[in-house]
Amino acid sequence: MKTSFINYTASYTDLYQLTMAQVYFLQGRQNESAVFDYFFRKLPFKGGYAISAGLSVLLDILENITFSDDDLAYFQEIGFNPEFITYLKQFQFRGNIHSVREGELVFPNCPTLVVEANIIEAQIIETLVLNILNFQSLIATKASRLRLVAGDKKLIDFGLRRAQGPASYYASRAAVIGGFNATSHVLAGRDFQISVSGTMAHSFIQSMPDELSAFDAYALIQKDQCVLLVDTYDTLKSGVPNAIKIGHQLAAKGHRLVAIRLDSGDLAYLAKESRKMLDQAGLSYVKIAASNQLDEWVIKSLVEQQAPIDIYGVGTNLVTGHPDGALDGVYKMSAHGDNPTIKLSENIAKTSLPGIKRVYRLLNKDHTWAGADLISLANDQEFKMMHHPFDPYKSMSVDRHDQIPLLNLVMQDGRKIVNEINLTEIANYVQSQLKKLPDEYKRFENPHIYKVGISTRLRDQRNELIEKYRI
Amino acid sequence: MKTSFINYTASYTDLYQLTMAQVYFLQGRQNESAVFDYFFRKLPFKGGYAISAGLSVLLDILENITFSDDDLAYFQEIGFNPEFITYLKQFQFRGNIHSVREGELVFPNCPTLVVEANIIEAQIIETLVLNILNFQSLIATKASRLRLVAGDKKLIDFGLRRAQGPASYYASRAAVIGGFNATSHVLAGRDFQISVSGTMAHSFIQSMPDELSAFDAYALIQKDQCVLLVDTYDTLKSGVPNAIKIGHQLAAKGHRLVAIRLDSGDLAYLAKESRKMLDQAGLSYVKIAASNQLDEWVIKSLVEQQAPIDIYGVGTNLVTGHPDGALDGVYKMSAHGDNPTIKLSENIAKTSLPGIKRVYRLLNKDHTWAGADLISLANDQEFKMMHHPFDPYKSMSVDRHDQIPLLNLVMQDGRKIVNEINLTEIANYVQSQLKKLPDEYKRFENPHIYKVGISTRLRDQRNELIEKYRI
Repeated sequence: MKTSFINYTASYTDLYQLTMAQVYFLQGRQNESAVFDYFFRKLPFKGGYAISAGLSVLLDILENITFSDDDLAYFQEIGFNPEFITYLKQFQFRGNIHSVREGELVFPNCPTLVVEANIIEAQIIETLVLNILNFQSLIATKASRLRLVAGDKKLIDFGLRRAQGPASYYASRAAVIGGFNATSHVLAGRDFQISVSGTMAHSFIQSMPDELSAFDAYALIQKDQCVLLVDTYDTLKSGVPNAIKIGHQLAAKGHRLVAIRLDSGDLAYLAKESRKMLDQAGLSYVKIAASNQLDEWVIKSLVEQQAPIDIYGVGTNLVTGHPDGALDGVYKMSAHGDNPTIKLSENIAKTSLPGIKRVYRLLNKDHTWAGADLISLANDQEFKMMHHPFDPYKSMSVDRHDQIPLLNLVMQDGRKIVNEINLTEIANYVQSQLKKLPDEYKRFENPHIYKVGISTRLRDQRNELIEKYRI
Repeated sequence: MKTSFINYTASYTDLYQLTMAQVYFLQGRQNESAVFDYFFRKLPFKGGYAISAGLSVLLDILENITFSDDDLAYFQEIGFNPEFITYLKQFQFRGNIHSVREGELVFPNCPTLVVEANIIEAQIIETLVLNILNFQSLIATKASRLRLVAGDKKLIDFGLRRAQGPASYYASRAAVIGGFNATSHVLAGRDFQISVSGTMAHSFIQSMPDELSAFDAYALIQKDQCVLLVDTYDTLKSGVPNAIKIGHQLAAKGHRLVAIRLDSGDLAYLAKESRKMLDQAGLSYVKIAASNQLDEWVIKSLVEQQAPIDIYGVGTNLVTGHPDGALDGVYKMSAHGDNPTIKLSENIAKTSLPGIKRVYRLLNKDHTWAGADLISLANDQEFKMMHHPFDPYKSMSVDRHDQIPLLNLVMQDGRKIVNEINLTEIANYVQSQLKKLPDEYKRFENPHIYKVGISTRLRDQRNELIEKYRI
């Protein structure tokens, strides 16, 4: 067992979860059951889909999370009730979780994870669920957009230095889910079995009398794993010519220079010129890597300009999920005991969907995607119609579609009941699903809106509860 | 000693640091010394200043960081040289660090931290330095902007659920440095001694037959620490009237309702109406808290509308440093052995400043800020002029100014040599400095540009090296 980089404790939560839990406990309500839905309202990056990521990390944490002695001492210090603190000493998450599989393509307002537990456990884990899923889903989605524009070129995560502190760790994991091939982040590579990649910085060149001797020293040791950074002094007048000399030296000894890396300037121009120079020198096998503030738009432009770049290093914009920075996932109570619950809003789009629910993906009879998901009550039997969740005048018939259930039981009584799926399998699943998703949902500008509807019984239940609580 | 939430290991770095280090080691160059500058090029949020944060966290990590057995086993697996791995077994950071104090106001292109160490140690810690300082400085700066608009109102960090995973931990710390009063994040509160704050979610109300009985149950237990969330069903028709009933009940028992919390709708309108209702009910001491996608612009608008809000809960936009998401700090080699080093660029603004440097803040004779910092060589004696770093036609006389050194030795031979400064002292220092900074640097729209200049000798040294390496 490796030492964990991050040691979660149950105090990784918002104070109000504990304040509420204390009231439940002192009221003797700790065994009341509750159901909460995790979902988001807005797709990130003005895109047409999102990727659900983080589930496997979340379940591992939930299986083991407790309050530490430090936590309990702290609760005493800040005035929690002693009997409640004693109760927290035994805290574990022993609930059930239904979820979409990790890597599923998901859409707004659909519950993608449903927690059923006693009200205290369900409440205390809320913050953790949101913190884990919101971030990894954001980054996996961002990464998938980069993969879409990069085609079959290699994508490497270079984000650690500008990441939001330790967020880097999960960013590297989520990047692979979205379609990245490798990371520069050694620790993430070690823990998540991601290929690691990286060669030299400008400082390496600066630490030698001149660029050529720096390249030479590097090649002598790295042999067949040699990538040379060519922009320390002047890319085309110095860096590439020196790299070519090294390429020839390596070739003479039976090795092959892997690549040169461009890290500044006009990448399209420099890549084209460098490609010509390498080809003319008989080094057509030497690849060109590029980095420097790349995002999906810059790569799209480079591809359109036919810049001969084989490897893209993407940093800040990937790992911070720029420009959004957050997925707006929420965790809303949908049932308490046997009763469906509702949160009202002046805005119907922010009124919650009451009751224990399930989600179905609709497929056409030829197994192509119908572009619609249906949210039903868990005990709904069959669906002929689905209704727009907010617009009472919109509905569609769904009885000619295959209805594939998306939520599966993944945790029972606090124990994972799914087989471990490795990161590569999750990433492959993402690409297989993205292939099925029609192009119009994948385009960056004004993508098609994927339909999410509710079943007739769910609609009726919501309307009854709105009436009941309307002032 | 508490169990750490995050366990840093030296493999929290980019692979290229290790690739370069291996070459240095196999060349027998592991005792060569090097100097690196940490600085950023662009102020975040289009603002006029930034706050340096994260130093104390960084020094604590550097004092203790090593490669773990897991790391070393992994290096073997991915093909590093066995002798180099044996060398890494002994790895510690034993260098010197000069830095601005934590909480200092800082400006582009000024080195705010300078690392002097053997080339392998200096290189391996690069990623960590960037990862820690970039993020915490970003968030402290964001928080300070919220403080500027919020005046003396209470600011609470609610960001944990939408933070970039574990980044939340340091975001809460940095928020306090920038001027926040409290956090909802229990673990960050525990470890950084930040006041924790939080009351109830909508789910608490939903779990009871009606809003009034939920408020009642809560008040019965929370007594003098009771904040009621009033927007579950209808803020003005249900939430506030029910809160007023509870306020009266509490008062009858000698307690005081602390506040109501608005979490949706038009916050300015709802705050004004709620204030009137509370005042008319004799509850003028009950405060109004507001949350829901706040940032410095929304709070500025609420303040301008004279919304009677006493407490602001700020989440996502604070802890993700929206809309920037990252500070663009870099770490550049400025000397190797006794030689100054340079990284060239077609763009003079991206050409590095060579040599071991120091930074001085210029004060007018009346101790007001002159709006300028001077970067000099460490062995410069006196300064009569300072020069624009990029524009050869701009210079100013500095001999009538007091010159306050900003970089101090904070770590020697790998040991911290500064007294522990607690978070409150850092936060107080920030506010004292922001008070001295003239208003024109603090405004949000087109702030005044703070001058950063270089000494005559530094300029001359850079120009000589540019000539030397120019192709």
